[in-house]
Amino acid sequence: MSKQKISAIPSIRRLPSYLHIIRQYRDEGQEYISGTVIAQELRLEPIQVRKDLAITGIVGKPKKGYPVVALMAAIEHFLGWDEVQQAVLIGAGNLGTALAGYQEFQFHGLNICAAFDQNPAKIGTNIHGVPVFSLETLSHQVSVLGASIAVLTVPSPYAQEVTDQLVQSGITAIWNFTNVKLKVPDNVIVQREDLTSGYAMLCVMMNARKNDE
Amino acid sequence: MSKQKISAIPSIRRLPSYLHIIRQYRDEGQEYISGTVIAQELRLEPIQVRKDLAITGIVGKPKKGYPVVALMAAIEHFLGWDEVQQAVLIGAGNLGTALAGYQEFQFHGLNICAAFDQNPAKIGTNIHGVPVFSLETLSHQVSVLGASIAVLTVPSPYAQEVTDQLVQSGITAIWNFTNVKLKVPDNVIVQREDLTSGYAMLCVMMNARKNDE
Repeated sequence: MSKQKISAIPSIRRLPSYLHIIRQYRDEGQEYISGTVIAQELRLEPIQVRKDLAITGIVGKPKKGYPVVALMAAIEHFLGWDEVQQAVLIGAGNLGTALAGYQEFQFHGLNICAAFDQNPAKIGTNIHGVPVFSLETLSHQVSVLGASIAVLTVPSPYAQEVTDQLVQSGITAIWNFTNVKLKVPDNVIVQREDLTSGYAMLCVMMNARKNDE
Repeated sequence: MSKQKISAIPSIRRLPSYLHIIRQYRDEGQEYISGTVIAQELRLEPIQVRKDLAITGIVGKPKKGYPVVALMAAIEHFLGWDEVQQAVLIGAGNLGTALAGYQEFQFHGLNICAAFDQNPAKIGTNIHGVPVFSLETLSHQVSVLGASIAVLTVPSPYAQEVTDQLVQSGITAIWNFTNVKLKVPDNVIVQREDLTSGYAMLCVMMNARKNDE
């Protein structure tokens, strides 16, 4: 995959919602889905949908659209979601527990196989079936479980310290739900999840509506 | 605000992270910040940062950059974050509780003033200081509190039913954390938060790294 494709960030961000719609059509027994239908469902322009889907390498058939099964496979392969990734969850608080129970992840090959916390009351319990271990056992567990991804939901003041521990344990990809800009070696990937960015979208749409009135 | 500006979705999504960096610089006593510095902090191209900031109407000074205080004010005004919005939280489960305690929201004028749940064990308690009420009192509370925004974190099977109730109660903006495509009247805004879209980004970066090796 070229660096050029990584720059297609908005397209990549839309792929999961396409997958969601396409899966519904497959479950309804449809064989083909058109870019126009996907666009209508998500209130996008059809040209945008076709452009986004093109990055996965698939081409639609005139008048028929995309074959549903092949399209799902193409998106999943492009995203690497056709392989299971073992992930550890760091922080078994409310957000961590919500993520452990987030059912969409099962469709995307993300398997949260263990959680880690500092709170003795949580260690030895499980959250949505995911066992909670002491942070002290992190390094050992990461290597036993073969995990490469960490989902980071600790309170911000602990974020960097825990990240250093993750890197030492061999984790090479961090999905960061804290508001801290983590310092990591060049070979470690960090994706920061900023919950306020969706709120920014909501507010801008509200402003636009106000000004239309 | 024109419809053209709403189409600048990736720019709008980046504004909160700019605000985060700029606030740090202000707290350190800096008077000016350059687009190049913001770009370095967030690993973006400087031209992208200047383009994004231009949608707020602010222009930087050559060699000095942007005045920090005015830049923060411009972004906050563009997003409508200089006004407090009263919001209700629907669903006091793990995700709802995490959002009720999410400290960044205080910087963005989002005030979650009440939570609603169906679980009798939760009604009458509070989550991070936010009181939890019965869903049956929703309509009354929304009008008393003057809330216009609902943050929806109920299990997916209940999402549409609760949305109908929200719309009847006078809610006109819904921040939707479920995976359901909600049916709402034209005057109601919905922003769906798809937690898997950040995971898609992480996976694509991991694939790219693999192919670089």
